[in-house]
Amino acid sequence: MSGATARPTLAFIASEAGVSPATVSKVLNGRTDVAPATRERITDLLKAHNYLAPGGRRARRSGLIDVVINGLDSPWAVEILRGVEAECAERGVGTVVSLVRGDDARPSSWTSLIALHGSDGVIMVSCRMTPDQREQIERTGVGLVVIDPIEPPDSGLASVGTTDWAGGRAATEHLISLGHRRIAVIGGPPDMLCTQARIDGYRTALERAGIEVDRRLIRYGGFRHEGAFRAALDLLALEDRPTAVFAGNDEQAMGVYEAARQSDLRVPDGLSVVGFDDLPLCQWLSPPLTTVRQPLEEMGRTAARSIFQQLDGEPLVSPRVELATELRVRLSTAPPPGA
Amino acid sequence: MSGATARPTLAFIASEAGVSPATVSKVLNGRTDVAPATRERITDLLKAHNYLAPGGRRARRSGLIDVVINGLDSPWAVEILRGVEAECAERGVGTVVSLVRGDDARPSSWTSLIALHGSDGVIMVSCRMTPDQREQIERTGVGLVVIDPIEPPDSGLASVGTTDWAGGRAATEHLISLGHRRIAVIGGPPDMLCTQARIDGYRTALERAGIEVDRRLIRYGGFRHEGAFRAALDLLALEDRPTAVFAGNDEQAMGVYEAARQSDLRVPDGLSVVGFDDLPLCQWLSPPLTTVRQPLEEMGRTAARSIFQQLDGEPLVSPRVELATELRVRLSTAPPPGA
Repeated sequence: MSGATARPTLAFIASEAGVSPATVSKVLNGRTDVAPATRERITDLLKAHNYLAPGGRRARRSGLIDVVINGLDSPWAVEILRGVEAECAERGVGTVVSLVRGDDARPSSWTSLIALHGSDGVIMVSCRMTPDQREQIERTGVGLVVIDPIEPPDSGLASVGTTDWAGGRAATEHLISLGHRRIAVIGGPPDMLCTQARIDGYRTALERAGIEVDRRLIRYGGFRHEGAFRAALDLLALEDRPTAVFAGNDEQAMGVYEAARQSDLRVPDGLSVVGFDDLPLCQWLSPPLTTVRQPLEEMGRTAARSIFQQLDGEPLVSPRVELATELRVRLSTAPPPGA
Repeated sequence: MSGATARPTLAFIASEAGVSPATVSKVLNGRTDVAPATRERITDLLKAHNYLAPGGRRARRSGLIDVVINGLDSPWAVEILRGVEAECAERGVGTVVSLVRGDDARPSSWTSLIALHGSDGVIMVSCRMTPDQREQIERTGVGLVVIDPIEPPDSGLASVGTTDWAGGRAATEHLISLGHRRIAVIGGPPDMLCTQARIDGYRTALERAGIEVDRRLIRYGGFRHEGAFRAALDLLALEDRPTAVFAGNDEQAMGVYEAARQSDLRVPDGLSVVGFDDLPLCQWLSPPLTTVRQPLEEMGRTAARSIFQQLDGEPLVSPRVELATELRVRLSTAPPPGA
């Protein structure tokens, strides 16, 4: 696609502006480390030569969308990636994957990478974005969507999520309907929006059923196997131990399975377990896991469509879209022992 | 990066050649649907204007590597992708993901997509590649590496694999050393190179221990949970049932776990299970799975490095690289019942 419209090269623009091609690249990519007067001169030339539209947005599309993921540790992120790729492939757009590693020592690396290949849009999957990073992305005029934002997004940011509160409530109501009264929850990181919503859904289900909320039964496992395993061992050692655990995500549910095994409890006869996400592997667990399905692939597709709408200048129906969760009952839940 | 060297646009080349820019794009991307005389005229102009090096290889790099994966169903492919992305990110190169779906109705879709964004190299992960597709990729002069080729690769193709035979042998020797004599294997698709190598390793281990190979204990599960689950149910219903199963991959091992549960056998007391791959989830299974580790991330890194070597014109040390497997003993293997 490159060069399909008749335009001078960036090198030509650089020589006209009396700067290096790298400096032109910086301006095109929204970097701020160019002197204001120089930037203005270059911007004018870029506009005159059809590199930038009047609003400053890139005039040319690269045919690439970037997905920025906080690690690929979680099969969860992979499901979202699958949806983005499907939507992009149908439009002949390539999907570029960038991983942000734990405490990334290179905070601006993925923004630089995106700038290098001149992406048309960026989908951030459950990552923290510094104000600098966001500003850098917005300056380049590319589309931006956040999936499952860690903190409440402001109204100017397009985001896609799922109905976490309703999902947490449905998981808990399912356990109540089976006869459970001692129901524990193991949430993800307490500062994450989705953790708070899921636990609030749990609380509401209990309260509506007239069951008192026992704060000792509310734990946090950081969305990881290890954390949930330890929390569950602790819960199962209580004198009045829970008969069911809502595990907050599927990886955590696996940790609860192992804690049950080590406590000589069989799932579901000795302990009922519900997860959250419905990763493909839930069907493969032994026993297959009852869980709250997030439409992860559809969330990826929705985010990609939002980017294309932004690029086409279409107004977003709503900056925030929440897709519905759905309870999938499998074999890990049963009435409590002795019921 | 685009346009960093002073060159005319493709539109200019098109007007010089008296064709449309799309036709120039076709030639640049190695497509054959351009009349030979026209192609030659365009190729000469592309070479003259520094778009193609004398050998016909693209002179300019896009800073993108494509990973073509046969679905993202398997967490296995994700581990490889992680390695490719890590290696590319360190070099400021973007990783583009293309998924080939089951029986893809659009056989040339990913080749078109790759041509569109002008990738520098292609890494094929356990996909079938038609001769047409391979020719199209090779004509564009981009780097090509195959990871875990389905069929034996010819000597002209760079490929990365793992020591499947040694891994199959190590898994079986581990079970023999615990005292097992009735050991079943559930392989992947019988036509896949890695399946054959792993089962041959199993046979060799048995033969060297003086245990007769019982053909009823050799099954195939298509590398999927469902297939392994059915094969294991069948094996566990045999009068002289096996006391251990080497599952051929980790997803299949999960199917064996469920078959054991439904047959009222506990892992490992009633049945020992060994997997292959060492996906991150092996540690999260209940019980944690003994498995043969493939260095998947390193395989991805090795493939990416091979692309960069090809682009730099460095000779490959060997077209075929096999990285070592390693047995990881966890809690799913124990001496046979009654031992």
